[in-house]
Amino acid sequence: MTQPIHGGNIVWAASQVSCPISSILDFSASINPLGPPQGVMAVLSDAISQITHYPDPDYRQLRRSLADYHHISPDWIIPGNGAAELLTWAGRELAQYQTTYLLVPAFRDYWRALRSFGAQVTSYPFPWDDDPGTLTLTPINPQSSGIIINNPHNPTGKLFSRETLLPLLEKFALVVIDEAFMDFLAPDAEQSLIALVSDYPNLVVLRSLTKFYSIPGLRLGYAIAHPSRLEQWQGWRDPWSVNSLAARIGEIVIKDQEFQQQTWQWLTPTRNALFEGLSHLQGLQPFKSSANFLLVKTAISSLQLQQELLQKHQILIRDCLSFPELGDRYFRIAVRTDTENERLLEALEQI
Amino acid sequence: MTQPIHGGNIVWAASQVSCPISSILDFSASINPLGPPQGVMAVLSDAISQITHYPDPDYRQLRRSLADYHHISPDWIIPGNGAAELLTWAGRELAQYQTTYLLVPAFRDYWRALRSFGAQVTSYPFPWDDDPGTLTLTPINPQSSGIIINNPHNPTGKLFSRETLLPLLEKFALVVIDEAFMDFLAPDAEQSLIALVSDYPNLVVLRSLTKFYSIPGLRLGYAIAHPSRLEQWQGWRDPWSVNSLAARIGEIVIKDQEFQQQTWQWLTPTRNALFEGLSHLQGLQPFKSSANFLLVKTAISSLQLQQELLQKHQILIRDCLSFPELGDRYFRIAVRTDTENERLLEALEQI
Repeated sequence: MTQPIHGGNIVWAASQVSCPISSILDFSASINPLGPPQGVMAVLSDAISQITHYPDPDYRQLRRSLADYHHISPDWIIPGNGAAELLTWAGRELAQYQTTYLLVPAFRDYWRALRSFGAQVTSYPFPWDDDPGTLTLTPINPQSSGIIINNPHNPTGKLFSRETLLPLLEKFALVVIDEAFMDFLAPDAEQSLIALVSDYPNLVVLRSLTKFYSIPGLRLGYAIAHPSRLEQWQGWRDPWSVNSLAARIGEIVIKDQEFQQQTWQWLTPTRNALFEGLSHLQGLQPFKSSANFLLVKTAISSLQLQQELLQKHQILIRDCLSFPELGDRYFRIAVRTDTENERLLEALEQI
Repeated sequence: MTQPIHGGNIVWAASQVSCPISSILDFSASINPLGPPQGVMAVLSDAISQITHYPDPDYRQLRRSLADYHHISPDWIIPGNGAAELLTWAGRELAQYQTTYLLVPAFRDYWRALRSFGAQVTSYPFPWDDDPGTLTLTPINPQSSGIIINNPHNPTGKLFSRETLLPLLEKFALVVIDEAFMDFLAPDAEQSLIALVSDYPNLVVLRSLTKFYSIPGLRLGYAIAHPSRLEQWQGWRDPWSVNSLAARIGEIVIKDQEFQQQTWQWLTPTRNALFEGLSHLQGLQPFKSSANFLLVKTAISSLQLQQELLQKHQILIRDCLSFPELGDRYFRIAVRTDTENERLLEALEQI
């Protein structure tokens, strides 16, 4: 099997060390270790009997739950088979413009979605290791330029403020903000643009439910944008893109305020402790992050580090080879539980 | 809620009569009433714990199971989020040709997939109520013409023989055969073109697992075609289009020979009995079918019939308004169990 280009490929990892998948401690996928929320398994067990029916092609209940959570109308929401599916259609929209600005290093799947429809890409190496997170970016031709930004940014964890992003809405014909990790920020810290969607028909916000609620295997995300845009997306794809189990779970988890609180309370101190731990290891330099993962610079090859961690400790970290601007001297790790983070730190210390 | 354009919309049906979804007897979706196979629920319950991981982006085990079943190599298989997802990518391929021939009446989603990418469509009204099922079809410009055919044909249930379809492979630049209902035919009767895929790079076969194995809520289908074509499709879409529960169930059900035998033994006599029953009802004329559904001509409006069955008996049938060539004088019903079919016949008799 060839080296995976995305995180979370535990099938590959297990095959590398000939161990069961369940033995792999996965730091490569940025999934909330506290989840899934209580009740998910019970609801799933109940919902299983419904798989003999087609999903509701309008996903009314799911869209209503998501709309209530965001205080918007359900017409402005389209659910998807993971945010990744919706990224494909965002890519198709962006390809209609002369060029799409892409902040690099960029999530590999942005390239895929843009290339899928032949989009021209203008790479914009942004100062991600600079503290304030400014974006002094003006397109050469505003009327025919799009931009895609993830916020917080993957793999650096950099958070752009609402004020930083606002000017882009005036400068670009289409602005796609991928907020796949935004729900990891508590209400007093988050910088979502969802509230602006009704004022800016040129704004699309993508959200994921798989990372925060630990359900990547179920596949569930959604886009928020003007209803006429979403209607067009619906015509591009098949009528039942979200399976009925994911739809049912989406309705439930978005209302789970206890799990949300618990996650916010866990993340900041745990990420700080992991950051501290990494800072004290020779040859490693972690970067400040607002998300549930940390980008780390390494003095030795990250591929070598990855193999050693896997072979000796059955720990999987995410190399950054799929980000050419970072390459072999960086890796990314999820923030997991204190115990698991300790296991990683101890393993790193031995290398 | 507006009139649904596809079958199986029990959410709509339940809202029409203000009853729980579980009270609707659904004849509108052509789903095997014997399923899901034993073991599916148990395997799903086990697999639920795996939803905290991403699916294997290569779907190795699923592709291996499907490949073994069809005696082909896994490289020639791509799984999809239902056959409907793969139809989208088939539509994108077909749109590259000058025109796509479409046998009408045609499954509504063919129009969607073709229009999604701006394909030019040449409607071909074929003699579906003629016995032999011949297709004397020659494109005006073979080098730049594609064709999509479902076999057995939906909604008529007409089966095209391998011999009938073979000449099309020489006449068209791309031939897409949608065999969503082919598995309902026993090995001695089926007319799949899968065995020909390795000889014809211009052939794509689509298959569904949701109908035969009664798992439409899980979403699972696959395409069989030349590996280089499938590689291109993989680049068009996101890496995790099949959720991990569907992938796991797919591995299991395709090996369930007992369920397959049971379904083949059930279908023919049950369909014959339903056909007979319908033939004896005044104003109704069923058509011979090779699939697990029957198209029926009605002397009165099918919409009126649908409403009466729903309101008085909570039975949902599929109107044919989404097939403009058929319109309001036809409806389609699934073959269900003897008892359920009896209930439908009795309800029809009272109208």
